[in-house]
Amino acid sequence: MIKKNAVFAVIGLGVLGGSYVQALSEKGFTCIGVDIDQSALDYALEKGWIVKGSTDPSVVEEADIVVSCLYPHAFVEWIKKNQQYMRSGTLLSDVTGVKRNVIRNIQAVLRKDVEFIACHPMAGKEFKGIRYADASKFTEANFIIVPTNSNSKEAIAAAHSLAEILGFTKISELSAEEHDKMIGFLSQLTHVIAVSLMNVTDNSHLVDFTGDSFRDLTRIAEINESMWPELFVENKDNLLREISAFQNELENMKELIDKEDYEGMKQKMILSTERRKKFNRS
Amino acid sequence: MIKKNAVFAVIGLGVLGGSYVQALSEKGFTCIGVDIDQSALDYALEKGWIVKGSTDPSVVEEADIVVSCLYPHAFVEWIKKNQQYMRSGTLLSDVTGVKRNVIRNIQAVLRKDVEFIACHPMAGKEFKGIRYADASKFTEANFIIVPTNSNSKEAIAAAHSLAEILGFTKISELSAEEHDKMIGFLSQLTHVIAVSLMNVTDNSHLVDFTGDSFRDLTRIAEINESMWPELFVENKDNLLREISAFQNELENMKELIDKEDYEGMKQKMILSTERRKKFNRS
Repeated sequence: MIKKNAVFAVIGLGVLGGSYVQALSEKGFTCIGVDIDQSALDYALEKGWIVKGSTDPSVVEEADIVVSCLYPHAFVEWIKKNQQYMRSGTLLSDVTGVKRNVIRNIQAVLRKDVEFIACHPMAGKEFKGIRYADASKFTEANFIIVPTNSNSKEAIAAAHSLAEILGFTKISELSAEEHDKMIGFLSQLTHVIAVSLMNVTDNSHLVDFTGDSFRDLTRIAEINESMWPELFVENKDNLLREISAFQNELENMKELIDKEDYEGMKQKMILSTERRKKFNRS
Repeated sequence: MIKKNAVFAVIGLGVLGGSYVQALSEKGFTCIGVDIDQSALDYALEKGWIVKGSTDPSVVEEADIVVSCLYPHAFVEWIKKNQQYMRSGTLLSDVTGVKRNVIRNIQAVLRKDVEFIACHPMAGKEFKGIRYADASKFTEANFIIVPTNSNSKEAIAAAHSLAEILGFTKISELSAEEHDKMIGFLSQLTHVIAVSLMNVTDNSHLVDFTGDSFRDLTRIAEINESMWPELFVENKDNLLREISAFQNELENMKELIDKEDYEGMKQKMILSTERRKKFNRS
């Protein structure tokens, strides 16, 4: 559980870090912000989301709970460089969208008197920066806790508590392997497809004819180019396997069309319709 | 132009045919329905959308304008079999989603005293049947008129007039070649991708983790399996070319990920973001 007087330090006040301090402060928690960008700190201070903002990482010594809202590599580097400032007994969490490598790399360097509980709030956005922070998005999003064998019951319970405080209602636990496999398919493959479809050719002359089909398939082609390449590489094995499986299925469809196999196409469509129905929101 | 006392015969009261008679009757036009399914006719009669419904195609002799809302092959067969019932001077239109073959096949058999003006109301739905008819969807959709050299100015003007009566506000003209190329990319390729993505593997166990990305990319995988195989084959050359181009681009992305080429991926994402912005609704 998280005590009512717990002090949070949030590292990296981007769109997610900003939403974290927004939600936490609205629930009455004291938040400290750490960022290399003073203007992000100023923004959070003006909004009243943090009581203190600093470009100096040593301020985390005032926190009971430290949440890194940095990208995977930056998170690991930050810990290597600044973990000495954390108090003994600090609970450390994160928001990264890939988990196996992050957990392994953090566990390899982390002090033994600080516990890391990995979390993935699936509330990503195509826009960067604290000005797009909006904690109201958390309600509908999934919050995934990724415990390992070395996590204490208390840390896992605290992660559940954190998710609830932030406003998430769909909270679950997955192993790092399950998490990364799921993300490789549901999130990463879909982004690869959207980016590829958008990049096939310049079709801006078709904008007047564009309906929902194309818009829906390419919405996520507006993508944060600073973050995603790293996420793809960190989950390369899963992602490449998913892309290959999709390529095979696409090739199957192409052959059916080429052979004018009406019955084969029909069966594919009956299957896709049946499967897709399960994904409709109730 | 279309006279206020014009009588329409709509052949095939499915979701589009139903929406046509709904919109036309609401604007005060007299509509006759022709369908092989008596229950579709009964539904339109009950709604007051048609004044007469018949399974006998000879009733089209009462119409000034005949609109086929049949799939491509069925449309051509219907004309071969029933065109003798149309009055001399009848204007004939359609709603098919592919145009080169339909126009060629119809022109090859059509009586010289009946003029065919090809139209494509881009207001398709994933559901079949008149019970899903909803003419209010026309407002936001594109209506494409596909004239040929043999069309009269009067017929083209009548098609514009028809589109306005139906409630379309985005009305344009394209050649059959332009139309089919555009449809191959914007509509058909996107449906092939969505169906393929949905069919890669049974991922129904992931439904609880599914966010907007996957839902958006697979929405159109709920697809009318009776119609689309035919549309794909009728536009096979364009569609296979578009699938191949997409496959190449997907393979490029895969290689960048495999080689861990961060800069290459970043450039792809900057391009996709820039291009996609133009497709955002203003």
